[in-house]
This record gives sequence, C-alpha cells and structure tokens, in this order.
Amino acid sequence: MTRSELIAQIRAKSSYLCVGLDTDMARLPAHLLREPDPVFAFNQQIIDATHDLCVAYKPNLAFYEAMGAKGWESLQKTMAYIPDTHFTIADAKRGDIGNTSRLYAQAFFGELGFDAVTVAPYMGIDSVQPFLEFEGKWVILLALTSNAGSQDFQLTQQDGGEPLFEKVMRRAQAWGSPANLMFVVGATHPEKFEEIRRIAPDHFLLVPGVGAQGGDLEQLTRFGANEDVGLLVNSSRGILYAGSGADFAEKARASAQALQAEMASLLG
Amino acid sequence: MTRSELIAQIRAKSSYLCVGLDTDMARLPAHLLREPDPVFAFNQQIIDATHDLCVAYKPNLAFYEAMGAKGWESLQKTMAYIPDTHFTIADAKRGDIGNTSRLYAQAFFGELGFDAVTVAPYMGIDSVQPFLEFEGKWVILLALTSNAGSQDFQLTQQDGGEPLFEKVMRRAQAWGSPANLMFVVGATHPEKFEEIRRIAPDHFLLVPGVGAQGGDLEQLTRFGANEDVGLLVNSSRGILYAGSGADFAEKARASAQALQAEMASLLG
Repeated sequence: MTRSELIAQIRAKSSYLCVGLDTDMARLPAHLLREPDPVFAFNQQIIDATHDLCVAYKPNLAFYEAMGAKGWESLQKTMAYIPDTHFTIADAKRGDIGNTSRLYAQAFFGELGFDAVTVAPYMGIDSVQPFLEFEGKWVILLALTSNAGSQDFQLTQQDGGEPLFEKVMRRAQAWGSPANLMFVVGATHPEKFEEIRRIAPDHFLLVPGVGAQGGDLEQLTRFGANEDVGLLVNSSRGILYAGSGADFAEKARASAQALQAEMASLLG
Repeated sequence: MTRSELIAQIRAKSSYLCVGLDTDMARLPAHLLREPDPVFAFNQQIIDATHDLCVAYKPNLAFYEAMGAKGWESLQKTMAYIPDTHFTIADAKRGDIGNTSRLYAQAFFGELGFDAVTVAPYMGIDSVQPFLEFEGKWVILLALTSNAGSQDFQLTQQDGGEPLFEKVMRRAQAWGSPANLMFVVGATHPEKFEEIRRIAPDHFLLVPGVGAQGGDLEQLTRFGANEDVGLLVNSSRGILYAGSGADFAEKARASAQALQAEMASLLG
C-alpha cells in the first residue's frame, strides 16, 4: 500500500487506528476452543467487528511463533482474511546481517504478504536495507519504544548530546523516505512527540502503548499529528480482550469504536 | 546445558566450534531436492558429519521462517535430531516488550527446546529478562556484531566516552550472570577483544564472522579466550556449502575438521 492510499483510508474512515492481533490462546473465549483453529476463528471475528473502524492490522509474531507450525498457519489464514483495503504490519522486530534480513523480508513481504515489518535498528544499515529494497513495502523502525526498558539505551545521551533514538531517526532518514519508512514511538513518551516531529516531520509514526500501557491519545495526537495525520495508533489487548465471553466481538467493536470516535473528534 | 557441562564438552573435544545451520533451499545439493523434507535431510547429514568436531549448533531462524509452516517443521525435526550433548542456539535476535518476549522465550525454550537464544538489546531490561527467567536457559545478547552496520550505532560514543556496545555489556551484567548470559562479538573486530575481556572476563562470547565474513580465528582466540576458553566460534556457510554435490557432507566435515584442528592447536 502506498503512502497516499494509506492517507486516503485514514481520511475516509476518520480513523488512524491499528488493531494489534496479539492473539493469545490462554485468553480466548472458551467457546472458541472447540474450533479447529481457535486463533483464526478469533481473528476472523475481531476483523469482522472492527474493519470499518480501523485502517491497519498488526499481528504480533511472537503469539503465532509460540504455537509453532500451527501458529504459522493461523497467521497465513489471518493475512488472507484481512481486506486489501487495510495496511498490514508484521510486528516482528527483526534485524540481522544482510543475507539474513533479506530472508526475513522474503518471509514477511513475499510469503505472508505484509505491507510492513517492524525492524530493530541495533545492527545498522545493512540489517535494515534489505527490507527497504522491496518495492511498495515498508520498514517501521524502532525508535523510542513504549516499555520501561526504553530508558536503558534509547534515551541515553550520545557524544554530541542527542539521545540514541534521535540518532537512529536522523540516520535512518538517509536509508528510506517517508514513502517507505515509518518509526515506532511509544505513546508512553508524550513529551517527546514535539521534538520527534522536528526530526521527522513527514514520516508516519506507529504508536503503541495506548490502552493497557497507559498512553494518552489526545496528547500524542496534538503533538504527533502532521498535515497528513502521519500516525497509526495501535491498540491490542484493550480491543481484543474487552470481553471474554460469547459477546467478545461486540465488546471489541465497542472498544474500537470509542477510540475511532475520539480520533474523529481529534481530527476535527 | 550448564556452563560447566559446556566447558567439559569443549575440553573433551578440543573444540569451541559452533556450526550455524543457515540452511538455504537455494543452495542445497540437487539430489536432496527429491527428499520429502530437503532441509531436514541436509541438516541430518551435516550433523552426522560434524557432531564429533563441534560443541554447538545454531539454526538461523530466518532460513526456516522464509519457508513458512514447513520450515518450522524442518526446524523441529532438526532440533530433535541434534544430540543432547550439544549446546543449541536459536539465532533469532528477538527482543520486545515483556509479555511478548515471554512468548518468544516460550517458543524457543519451551516449544523447540533450545538451550539459548540470541536477543537484541535495543529495548532494554524488560525485553531481555523474560528470557533469563527460564531455569537452565541462556540469553546471548548482541553486543558488537560482525556486519558493516555495527558502525552505525554500536560503536558510537556515549556521553561519558564508552561506545554503545560497551554500555550494553556493562549494563546487562546486572541482569544475568556468566551462568546464563553470553554476548555476541563479531570476529571482524579482532582489535576489540582485549577491551571486551576487561569488561566481561568470565562471560562466554559467541563469535560469528569467521569464514565467509573474513574473521581471523588465531587472533580472536589469542585475545578473546579466558581460562574456561569462554568462546563459541561459529561457522555457517564455510561448512554447509564447502561442497555442492553428492559429497557435500564429506566436504563439510573436512571444513569443520580444519577449524577444529586449528582450535585444538590454539588451545595447546
């Protein structure tokens, strides 16, 4: 999906919501466990209940890998089920030497058909570039993550004064453009969005950490949105597990709808 | 596998060789393509030909993921085939928020039975700790990697003067001990091993980059070995693809044997 197609979807739906498909066998409603593929059955109903309210879906690869080959099949079926109108993100946080990153790119873009993959920057340019070489596909590079451990290295000053995540954002702009590179910026750092927009005014930001992790949608939108909106705000657990019974999909829809309504009002 | 069991294996075999199972469908000998599972058939013969010469095997997850669910099955069969005497490393370079890292740990330690997994440090403590909580299992944390992109962030000075990879090594020593934490240090940085041993005298180092990437075994052993040897030196392509015909396993053995003989002589 191109940048302008993504923006058109956001405008049409008044939504920059990404639904994270962190589908956890241990948290599925009991009645789904009788299905031949409970994870896919759950995802199907979540997608049915939310697709008009969101512009993106983001399966978290760990949840599928934890189930082995069967999990990989659930993921393939889920990808086939997501409508073509939606931007798809493999939340994989990969990054390895060039010949290995190339294979990960093949797995996520080629085999599974994702639009984007999250990539960790630690190994530098040749760990990221193989993903950027796929025509029409996107890298979403970790910059400032939503977890407590973001303090350990991302926020420490480099020689010259800038923290590591800013160095990552500046340097990566030589590798990709706003047409194929986004950054992960956690909603738990609302005070950083103004500075981040000075560094990367045009790049989309994928923002996790709203909901279970406590980020504030209003604040991050005020400081993080640009003229193309430029945000994909993810919610996973807050939508998927809004309910735990037979009506889980209705509850998920209500939770997604509340976020979408707030987004519509913030887009004004 | 415990640290003392690993050291005993190294002493018994006069070898600190790790064979990287970067098994690439595109590079398999033609006659194996008729097998029901060519990747597993290849790995089986490589293991048969090298197990007395090496102490560890390191499947690179990208190569299996690029084949989808079928790749995952090849990996499971490979893991079941590796003798219990060998240390097994999932070269996965994972790292995510706590609840997600916990699932990756479950996938690699629980589901697949690996002894160790490579982990990327960018997301900090809570991305690493869930792996360290598995009794008897190991984290191998990326410190200074073998690729060109290691220059981008790992080698840049932090405020205070030390490069990022040193900060990673110092800080991570508060998270794990030499009994459950190793570091990745690329063989392409031989001039760094002395300094690294000052920072982490007792931790094992997993050293990729010998062979195809050009690292020098003699030099890294001279500066990198400690009194327990403390090194696992990996070779992947140089062993797996030493031959490309029906005799590929003999050629792989010869290549592994040359490395083991050099190791035996360096260990004196």
